[in-house]
Amino acid sequence: MMPVSSDHSVRVAACQLSLQVGETGRNRAAASDAIGIAAGQGAHVVVLPELVPSGYVFASAAEARALAEPADGPTVTGWQRLAAQHDLVIVGGFCELGESGEVLNSAAIVDGGGTRAIYRKAHLWDAEPDVFTPGDCDPPVIDTARGRIGVMVCYDAEFPEWVRKPALAGADLLAVPTNWPAEPRPAGERPMVVLNVQAAASTNRIFIAAADRCGTERGVSWTGGTVIAGADGYPLAGPVCADEPAVLVADCDLRLARSKANSPRNDVHADRRPGLYR
Amino acid sequence: MMPVSSDHSVRVAACQLSLQVGETGRNRAAASDAIGIAAGQGAHVVVLPELVPSGYVFASAAEARALAEPADGPTVTGWQRLAAQHDLVIVGGFCELGESGEVLNSAAIVDGGGTRAIYRKAHLWDAEPDVFTPGDCDPPVIDTARGRIGVMVCYDAEFPEWVRKPALAGADLLAVPTNWPAEPRPAGERPMVVLNVQAAASTNRIFIAAADRCGTERGVSWTGGTVIAGADGYPLAGPVCADEPAVLVADCDLRLARSKANSPRNDVHADRRPGLYR
Repeated sequence: MMPVSSDHSVRVAACQLSLQVGETGRNRAAASDAIGIAAGQGAHVVVLPELVPSGYVFASAAEARALAEPADGPTVTGWQRLAAQHDLVIVGGFCELGESGEVLNSAAIVDGGGTRAIYRKAHLWDAEPDVFTPGDCDPPVIDTARGRIGVMVCYDAEFPEWVRKPALAGADLLAVPTNWPAEPRPAGERPMVVLNVQAAASTNRIFIAAADRCGTERGVSWTGGTVIAGADGYPLAGPVCADEPAVLVADCDLRLARSKANSPRNDVHADRRPGLYR
Repeated sequence: MMPVSSDHSVRVAACQLSLQVGETGRNRAAASDAIGIAAGQGAHVVVLPELVPSGYVFASAAEARALAEPADGPTVTGWQRLAAQHDLVIVGGFCELGESGEVLNSAAIVDGGGTRAIYRKAHLWDAEPDVFTPGDCDPPVIDTARGRIGVMVCYDAEFPEWVRKPALAGADLLAVPTNWPAEPRPAGERPMVVLNVQAAASTNRIFIAAADRCGTERGVSWTGGTVIAGADGYPLAGPVCADEPAVLVADCDLRLARSKANSPRNDVHADRRPGLYR
């Protein structure tokens, strides 16, 4: 695996955006603007929400299909240009029209060299099965100039078995585009989706950057839980927990994710007992 | 599986105790006192910490061995008497002398009918491998008059694969005797061990009661993170997060753990894709 950058610190940005279903041009511009802000703050890696260009709250499968674009379509090629221009790694979600005509809830990881991988969400939420074909491939783990980056989408990250896969494959940072619908929670409590991210980071000693939504889309509001968690699970930036756009930035010493030690004699991965888990 | 109690609500107590290594009589009395307090508050299920009679911070394997007792020794038979007297289910940890002479970090679940199961900790922390033989059997899931109760010990609960086993086997409530050593954390942050419990509850839609330690034992202090988490992951009682004894009590509607739905169309267990997790 490639070494992490020579100064060890990778500046990660997670962008919380307000998007509207069908307003593709405006949604792409919101993402581009946030990428520009992140680049201006010295970010090396930028994480965007799920389904950026299309929005999320589709009225029908037909509407989603009409908004889908191929993996080499305008959204991902636009991110390629911005990645090259600002020397960034960008991870973001989009509504993909697959090569066989299927519609997928996908995320791209791109850098100055182009698209490094496309991931398709494997765990679908609520009405998504009416719209999307679930993915059945592992989350990618990509060696970038800024460290090894894994990718999954939203509800995927609530399955600890799924987070384990890129973590065991050596991901330093897991990038999670999300659209977390707002749910009630007790006063003073952090959203459980954020706690799940923190626990997933801690349980694997990896960094996790989750980029969420804000605003209201066809009556659905969002958690606004954008967060960057360190390898110890504690937030380095966020959670925002407010209904407003945000570009969070945190300096992540990704070397910390290359040791899984959580005590002088423990290791969160080596201590697993997979023979007992069957 | 047996129905949960007719009024559906099970009063669960989790007891945070101050114990000292080797002070077996005093430690047993501290546990008995807490059980009495819990019973006086109407508890049906009482969870005690890990290694109650022996304490935790052994100077040597020999010291632990000298403090070990068989599963039908005075600690567990004492809990049986208290369970019968107060009509309780009691789960607590003890230093077990196994039938082959091995020393084990064990937990008993007892009710008025006697010992229902003995569990041996499978994931050992820090110096524990110098002292204990690791268990290699699944966490028990016991049908009690108060619902189905699973048992594991401390560091075990940080392995999501391990929590899945009793959860998939139908546990309504997971009882977790713990000795969580104090660790630094950012100001205002809840201890990560507590967040792991919350995430494990939420990820499986089960109740979890974790009973921790307080006080200082041979220079080791404890998190004091005793907590009872609901099936949505939010605390019903605690976390204490203070260095003082406590008997937390929460009414748990265990019917909530019998539905794994986390949206009208989702189910935290049925949505798993085990074929992809290999």
